[in-house]
Amino acid sequence: MSITTPRGFVASGLASGIKSSGALDLALLATDDGAAVPTAATFTTNLAAAAPVLVSRAHLAASGGRASAVVISSGNANAATGGPGRADAVRMCNLVAAGLGVPSECILVCSTGLIGVPLPMGPIEAGIPTLVSARSGSDRGGEQAAMGILTTDSGRKEALVANGSFTVAGMAKGAGMLAPNMATMLAFLTTDAAVESGALADLLRIAVRDSFNSMTVDGCTSTNDTVVLMASGRAGVADPNVVVDAVTEVCATLAGQMASDAEGASKIVQVQVTGARSDGEAHAAARKVADSLLVKCSLNGEDPYWGRVASDLGSAGVGFEMDRLAIAYGGIIVCRGGVAAVHDADGVARHLAGSLIEIHCELGVGDGNGVVMGVDLGHGYIDENRTTS
Amino acid sequence: MSITTPRGFVASGLASGIKSSGALDLALLATDDGAAVPTAATFTTNLAAAAPVLVSRAHLAASGGRASAVVISSGNANAATGGPGRADAVRMCNLVAAGLGVPSECILVCSTGLIGVPLPMGPIEAGIPTLVSARSGSDRGGEQAAMGILTTDSGRKEALVANGSFTVAGMAKGAGMLAPNMATMLAFLTTDAAVESGALADLLRIAVRDSFNSMTVDGCTSTNDTVVLMASGRAGVADPNVVVDAVTEVCATLAGQMASDAEGASKIVQVQVTGARSDGEAHAAARKVADSLLVKCSLNGEDPYWGRVASDLGSAGVGFEMDRLAIAYGGIIVCRGGVAAVHDADGVARHLAGSLIEIHCELGVGDGNGVVMGVDLGHGYIDENRTTS
Repeated sequence: MSITTPRGFVASGLASGIKSSGALDLALLATDDGAAVPTAATFTTNLAAAAPVLVSRAHLAASGGRASAVVISSGNANAATGGPGRADAVRMCNLVAAGLGVPSECILVCSTGLIGVPLPMGPIEAGIPTLVSARSGSDRGGEQAAMGILTTDSGRKEALVANGSFTVAGMAKGAGMLAPNMATMLAFLTTDAAVESGALADLLRIAVRDSFNSMTVDGCTSTNDTVVLMASGRAGVADPNVVVDAVTEVCATLAGQMASDAEGASKIVQVQVTGARSDGEAHAAARKVADSLLVKCSLNGEDPYWGRVASDLGSAGVGFEMDRLAIAYGGIIVCRGGVAAVHDADGVARHLAGSLIEIHCELGVGDGNGVVMGVDLGHGYIDENRTTS
Repeated sequence: MSITTPRGFVASGLASGIKSSGALDLALLATDDGAAVPTAATFTTNLAAAAPVLVSRAHLAASGGRASAVVISSGNANAATGGPGRADAVRMCNLVAAGLGVPSECILVCSTGLIGVPLPMGPIEAGIPTLVSARSGSDRGGEQAAMGILTTDSGRKEALVANGSFTVAGMAKGAGMLAPNMATMLAFLTTDAAVESGALADLLRIAVRDSFNSMTVDGCTSTNDTVVLMASGRAGVADPNVVVDAVTEVCATLAGQMASDAEGASKIVQVQVTGARSDGEAHAAARKVADSLLVKCSLNGEDPYWGRVASDLGSAGVGFEMDRLAIAYGGIIVCRGGVAAVHDADGVARHLAGSLIEIHCELGVGDGNGVVMGVDLGHGYIDENRTTS
């Protein structure tokens, strides 16, 4: 299986020479006939958004939410590159458009890698025609594409949900700003379900909220984060409520692969907050705990010090009453009514020794719920990120 | 010099047995005659505020901004201890009040240490009468108090500004949430300048904003943070504008001592943001950079990767236009107009090799300025914080 498993898609990947390692660094995902199909995308909220983000946003707006292809380069982010960088991103689209015989605004573009360095257009200009020629609906094409978007990832990240009547596939790279040079999370999704552009945008927003946006490695929002979903329609009309579930499942699977692959991390933590004043506040509180340096250090050390969790909740900017707070590790309540609860310390220690830690915080002030997935903080993260050279 | 150098104050410290190490763990700061003098305080904004914070806030409100003394215990935060914790904090005030022969609401109380563990009242009840008897205007008394408030600090933190007509002294502990068990920053200031309660509160707010609140070690706001300023009036009326400068200088000196003593940190960074839409936005942007895990790792590795700084500024939630951004390390511009600037890379490397790193970010969208002091992130921080045992 690959990104080309849903009917109507082709893909390719190659090593153009952007990366000095010789690893694959260009990828193409396209419709098999070049038709512009309903396409939705979510982009980073970072105001320092990279050139390809600006260009893809503009193209998607100009095309009315349709695209024929997306071209991806890895090894250089084309971020903080100014007007020349925007021209380079447009040039990448033009080259693909020429190869496919479609208008340039039907092409989206993504890049990931080092910020502030001009894109090496020599290898890219030479590589794109070959990339276009090599596109194929085979698994091999999809695999090459899934490799071409990677940076420091340990391997391909792919997911597939087959629903009987339609399929959804995805490929991704990164895990937040997990690695030294390579800051970004990118994900590309295909489905053969027929969904119109507006509905596709709505369901992608929901799927991203409940997957990628419920994950944090280090609280950093990159300049290049992008998720693209293309719908070929080849499997016919499907219930959007069913499609959203399948897309969310693919996104959640890819998000899990990212968290598992987060460099320097040894444990994944799932922070669930219930009883907040709203779902939004629950999510914010869970994110505050998952992003807390002190909590992340505690997880690395398997230390059951829930006082840090309470302190983070109290400073999360959400409705909070200390006397109503309960905290549980792996289902074992360690704090109730805002004070220490007698508990099975050995059970907590066993839970903390595992690789998936569950922290549940009940705020007792409403009905809002939220879950955020995070990772611990150990020497490995620092070793990976202290230098880019 | 010590906290008792300004006229009208006495202090003491002793080892009551809260700390199993036998280190000093109780401290008293009081007026020499027991009079309740104008006193201002700022407390943590954490909604999980510890019992002594709740009690001190209530006492200061009841007394109309006056206090005779503040009693401090270290080794246990009396946080997440519920109603019994609040009763323990009141009991500490009552014991001091009885010793001094003043009303209980004229006593403030602070604690610092582990969260979620009941305060060991045995040693505290036995210790406070001795602590009160031992109070003295000598430097020895001040030194003992400055030691009694410490947790994992490497030594006393004290500062003094003599202004000719009046003096301001301070003692402090901590550096944000710098250490495993001991989460809090506390600071106690005395002056012999005569300033009324309202004006004192105003000037303390300014001084704290420009010192302690412009510093970050790990972005965590503890449950116990407290700054107290007492004014004996013995030196007569002073111009509040002159007093605020002196108080700010003492606070900034103590803040600098905290940053230098931040465990696991090898470098201090001063992030200055200019050209923001407002001072508030400049401060928020500077804090975002100073709290960024990726920037902190880069500082640890002496890596000049300004792309992370640009990315943090773009996601700081403040007015930002990439094409107007300039970034300098130690005065050497590395990014101008949002793109890489040709620069003296050896000069940047020499600056990054030092122990004080200056990052200046010019946003070019307004007149707002702000400075935040932070530290790098290395193995030491993790080693200090991964377990509390």
